[in-house]
Amino acid sequence: MNIAGVATRTIAPEPDGRSVRVIDQTLLPHRLATIVLRSADDAARAIRTMQVRGAPLIGATAAYGLALALAADPSDANLTGACARLLATRPTAVNLRWALDAARGAVAPLAPRDRAAAAFRHAVARSEADVTTNSAIGDHGLAVLRRIAKAKTGPLNVLTHCNAGWLACVDWGTALAPIYKAHDAGLAVHVWVDETRPRNQGTLTAWELGQHGVPHTLVADNAGGHLMRQGRIDVCIVGADRVAANGDVANKIGTYLKALAAKDTGVPFYVALPSSTIDWTCPDGAAIPIEERDAAEVTHMTGVGPGGAVVAVRIAPEGTAAANPAFDVTPARLVGGLVTERGVGPASREGLLGLCPERRAA
Amino acid sequence: MNIAGVATRTIAPEPDGRSVRVIDQTLLPHRLATIVLRSADDAARAIRTMQVRGAPLIGATAAYGLALALAADPSDANLTGACARLLATRPTAVNLRWALDAARGAVAPLAPRDRAAAAFRHAVARSEADVTTNSAIGDHGLAVLRRIAKAKTGPLNVLTHCNAGWLACVDWGTALAPIYKAHDAGLAVHVWVDETRPRNQGTLTAWELGQHGVPHTLVADNAGGHLMRQGRIDVCIVGADRVAANGDVANKIGTYLKALAAKDTGVPFYVALPSSTIDWTCPDGAAIPIEERDAAEVTHMTGVGPGGAVVAVRIAPEGTAAANPAFDVTPARLVGGLVTERGVGPASREGLLGLCPERRAA
Repeated sequence: MNIAGVATRTIAPEPDGRSVRVIDQTLLPHRLATIVLRSADDAARAIRTMQVRGAPLIGATAAYGLALALAADPSDANLTGACARLLATRPTAVNLRWALDAARGAVAPLAPRDRAAAAFRHAVARSEADVTTNSAIGDHGLAVLRRIAKAKTGPLNVLTHCNAGWLACVDWGTALAPIYKAHDAGLAVHVWVDETRPRNQGTLTAWELGQHGVPHTLVADNAGGHLMRQGRIDVCIVGADRVAANGDVANKIGTYLKALAAKDTGVPFYVALPSSTIDWTCPDGAAIPIEERDAAEVTHMTGVGPGGAVVAVRIAPEGTAAANPAFDVTPARLVGGLVTERGVGPASREGLLGLCPERRAA
Repeated sequence: MNIAGVATRTIAPEPDGRSVRVIDQTLLPHRLATIVLRSADDAARAIRTMQVRGAPLIGATAAYGLALALAADPSDANLTGACARLLATRPTAVNLRWALDAARGAVAPLAPRDRAAAAFRHAVARSEADVTTNSAIGDHGLAVLRRIAKAKTGPLNVLTHCNAGWLACVDWGTALAPIYKAHDAGLAVHVWVDETRPRNQGTLTAWELGQHGVPHTLVADNAGGHLMRQGRIDVCIVGADRVAANGDVANKIGTYLKALAAKDTGVPFYVALPSSTIDWTCPDGAAIPIEERDAAEVTHMTGVGPGGAVVAVRIAPEGTAAANPAFDVTPARLVGGLVTERGVGPASREGLLGLCPERRAA
């Protein structure tokens, strides 16, 4: 998508063919800067510290990370070790495991000397496929938005939680892809953006919507239920970090609360995801591991200080204990539909099998 | 309650009998400082800027504010004008109107020269009555907590939203009064404290619980639903800014979302309030005005910077539009019970009349 009118991606190989450039998302929305990843450790650190974030982008970064690992040492031992180190960075997003399994499967049969180049080609192709997938999610989601918009006058009001935009992917986004497609197609759309404490990924969503000219309003995470009760939200769309085989959805902490409010008020609630986010080995949401992150993310906040510098301030009393579960599980019964690159279907075992008929045999 | 072991109140008359000292809550939890209110304008500003906050404390401050107004000018015109100026400070809390009506009713029949002293005495008596009321709320709530604690082993886990503690009242608090009584009685209790964006009143709750030695853990507003699904919350207790005659509850924005999660997971959800918070003129929640506050409360955050100074940082991209509804309405059907100084009753018209039988005639 665009940054100040220039088409940009979150991750791209450097011309040297041995390193990868990514946007450092820990500095956004206050400063736009990129960093170059030159090793698997660089990639693992970028994922762990959330310089890159969002389930699809984490997968893309891991694929490049494995290529960087093999460029340094293409042995079987390092292939296994690098996969394990990259997999350990974030526990909830299933795309990470899937990306590493696919990359490993593509290079393991090769002679060690051929592995690095093949892994790099694999990562590039994976990134391109991600863009195609997310564009298709946008097309299918646009059809959903058009249908809802037809039933009302005035702009379509969409609520989203966290950042499931192009910053979370290679391009387009998942939840935001239909919104960008709608805006580009001339459908009047306004986005209510949940702040998404404690990491404030909603400010990334506000930033990218602003860069693309999509009207939006930032709200505290507490506000969405009230807005739905007041009839000011027509539809909710969020992303997903993992979808269990029964349609339960793990996504950013707080998603469950918005899904409850949507159900209570009759607002349609959609989850947008590439079908690779479905974890067929997870029978239901209870089997999805939930990452617990640093308490300091709750007790502190980063922003632009009076002098223009980006600073972290402590917002809680010194020494306050804090808990920081990063994701929650929204039961399938609260999800109105899943928007994937293969089409839109209900959040249920049958719905998932309808989208992925090749799994019926599995 | 205690600050560093010293019994303290949020508001108290100065020895000169012509001014009132309050804790400046805009500096908490980072700095403890008091300010002296010498005029009705001081009192109105303190309420509007949230130097004093919480429905009961707003009422107490307004009563003192009217006394300060009458000390300057006891005329009928100023009595009417000061009431109007104080009433306009915050639209949602009904205690404000009730406090002003009562104070006005007490002094209007008097000769102007007697009004200031009478209004001051009225404000002092009102504050004392507030303490008695909240202590009784604590006793009735303690019985509820004891009953829930009996059904489990280990400490009782209570979730609360916003600050309905002694800082929101003259002493004791509403939602926190039962928790203080439980802690003082030796019942093991642990409090999950919602941060409560955008004003972060949860950090006030963490501060006052910490001062009193009550174990607690701060969480983002997004986390409560997940914690309830995991069985880590035994009961929710919140305060109220206004309760309609059908039992609908207006309270800090985000309360509705927690009530939905409590209903969905079978966690008891209680609202603690003095019976003066019931607005018999409001048929239901839809009739309660919801205050819209400054967008800067969403886009900025105050905390302690690297040098130890309290600074405001901008957390959203420059120029981001934000909406900031300060309260929401939780429908009576989601409220398990109302804890008042008169006892505990269901959130319904019949339940309210059971608590306040004198209203049956009205």
